[in-house]
Amino acid sequence: MTLKTAYEKTAFQFGNHGKREVALLNKAFQNIPDNTPADMYGNGEIITAFETKMARFLGKEAALFFPSGTMAQQIALRIHCDDKALNKVAYHPLSHLEIHESDGLKELHHIETILLADKDHIVDLTAIQSLKEHVAAILLELPQREIGGQLPKFDELERIAAFCKTHDIRLHLDGARLLEILPYYKKEASQIAALFDSVYVSFYKGIGSIAGAILAGDQDFIDKAMTWKKRYGGNLISLYPYIIPADYYFDLRVNKMELYYEAAKKVAALLNECPSITTVPQVPVSNMFHIHFHKPIDEMTSLLIALYEKTNIGLANYLRPINDTECSFELNFGDAFAEINPSDLKLFFTELNKLLT
Amino acid sequence: MTLKTAYEKTAFQFGNHGKREVALLNKAFQNIPDNTPADMYGNGEIITAFETKMARFLGKEAALFFPSGTMAQQIALRIHCDDKALNKVAYHPLSHLEIHESDGLKELHHIETILLADKDHIVDLTAIQSLKEHVAAILLELPQREIGGQLPKFDELERIAAFCKTHDIRLHLDGARLLEILPYYKKEASQIAALFDSVYVSFYKGIGSIAGAILAGDQDFIDKAMTWKKRYGGNLISLYPYIIPADYYFDLRVNKMELYYEAAKKVAALLNECPSITTVPQVPVSNMFHIHFHKPIDEMTSLLIALYEKTNIGLANYLRPINDTECSFELNFGDAFAEINPSDLKLFFTELNKLLT
Repeated sequence: MTLKTAYEKTAFQFGNHGKREVALLNKAFQNIPDNTPADMYGNGEIITAFETKMARFLGKEAALFFPSGTMAQQIALRIHCDDKALNKVAYHPLSHLEIHESDGLKELHHIETILLADKDHIVDLTAIQSLKEHVAAILLELPQREIGGQLPKFDELERIAAFCKTHDIRLHLDGARLLEILPYYKKEASQIAALFDSVYVSFYKGIGSIAGAILAGDQDFIDKAMTWKKRYGGNLISLYPYIIPADYYFDLRVNKMELYYEAAKKVAALLNECPSITTVPQVPVSNMFHIHFHKPIDEMTSLLIALYEKTNIGLANYLRPINDTECSFELNFGDAFAEINPSDLKLFFTELNKLLT
Repeated sequence: MTLKTAYEKTAFQFGNHGKREVALLNKAFQNIPDNTPADMYGNGEIITAFETKMARFLGKEAALFFPSGTMAQQIALRIHCDDKALNKVAYHPLSHLEIHESDGLKELHHIETILLADKDHIVDLTAIQSLKEHVAAILLELPQREIGGQLPKFDELERIAAFCKTHDIRLHLDGARLLEILPYYKKEASQIAALFDSVYVSFYKGIGSIAGAILAGDQDFIDKAMTWKKRYGGNLISLYPYIIPADYYFDLRVNKMELYYEAAKKVAALLNECPSITTVPQVPVSNMFHIHFHKPIDEMTSLLIALYEKTNIGLANYLRPINDTECSFELNFGDAFAEINPSDLKLFFTELNKLLT
């Protein structure tokens, strides 16, 4: 049996919002009347109402719905480069654009990218001050997902924003998980977004919808983004199959981020008490963290399969090797964790400790 | 009252499949079990089964589902250009890529485009033979939508394909409306597609689904297309909100194209008998044609509003000015026409003739 199969057989899971199935769509559409008009090529109540709602939530002049964050962020950086007449941007070495988009930014826009900071650390002001070349824009990902979801302090963010303003550098927020960090910062989304010229938010991470993204900024920026959205083939005749679920799950979960954050902190503390386990970060600053198992991947896989069978609770559905003696997994908290009752949770950690000792 | 409002108030319409509303999605999902797993980043039964079905239907090795035809076709041409190490393609002056994509092909790929044939005529072999420069690929749109949906004869297509093969030019089919021309050619889709190196088909024209497109070709071509789909941000975590409806409406309507074609021919003949009306083409070769009203747009608008109120049947929901004395409208036949009963149809043309005389 594979780890994935064993995980899928469990009745309860630590992470996420449950299985990604068609039910997700059906639930979002159940109260939408059949005669609701489709959005048409970016127009119509469904799309404009949601864009307006998101622009207000983010405290920006305007917002545009995109089928994907990949499309939205490449476009954001292209506009900033064009506005500054400089084809150069900087971001973290493990930015989504650098490692998950088959070099779309470079292949489609010929934008030069400068990698900020060491790959295991967040981007701080020092890293930005150390830039040897002028760039049109800096993309900051909050939280920095590939290193477990880490964050700078809010005052560090303010200093970064001030530095960029002074040095004529546009600042773009990769806020795929922006909502997930609000409890840690104790801020409104608009207070974070105010530090940035443009902001992207995803609807299928903490919000748990099907797909889709919002890009927000000033009106001139969004007007330009619409032209690029057409160029990419992203201005579909109708985007409501993603917008209606995005809106539905946004309303359902926008106020649950504190709950997910607290769950993450609680479980990270329990995991850090186990032998051969550490979490990155040690104390989570959002609903996510990485688990590092200080065991070879094969040994850890067998151990987890046994654990899932014994407890009926799934933790990781894959493991990624770090080296011959370590492996890791990314855990994101959503609605699923609340389904695990306290005694089962206690049993899980008792068994996990036993297996690791 | 606007023409659009008057049209929307009618109980029956000549064109299309009915209103674009959320019902379209609900109907397609009504028999899909809640626990059907979502496709994930291009993998999973929902997406691979549909891509395999479409590859077979088109007689190609492989196929890839795209959120839009704009994305699919730019990518197809980019791959052909890269393979031929020549950044130059040719297509009709009114190609979708030339007039409806905000210059995406040029802005994203820096591909030079050569316009084939006069804008009021279809691309024929003579136009291709007259090319003064070598091109990597030619895009043929069948039928040529912006001139009413016109087609070359099948043996002309065969000669074009043979010429391109001999001259090392890739041939791409803009088959947004490929299914709609099969009754005229009396061919299978795969027989048309066999003349082309790559083929795109849309699911929201004659098929009448929500959005989405298929790109088909050989395996090497589709592998490259997948990389570009990722670069564009088109490889969404889940595309099933478009795939399930595309599959549903494909099955529902793939065999109804003859019906739509016959309706188009019948209505075009009736319209051509009216004073001040001609159709382009005079005898349709698909389910579509353009209606040219030889009346000023304001006069024609008032006349049609009166006609809709009298008959409860809508013909055009907009008019496009050609010049001070003429205006036009594009009519596409789908399921709606069959709802008009013969006596009401007769009344419509009696009244139309009266108003135009």
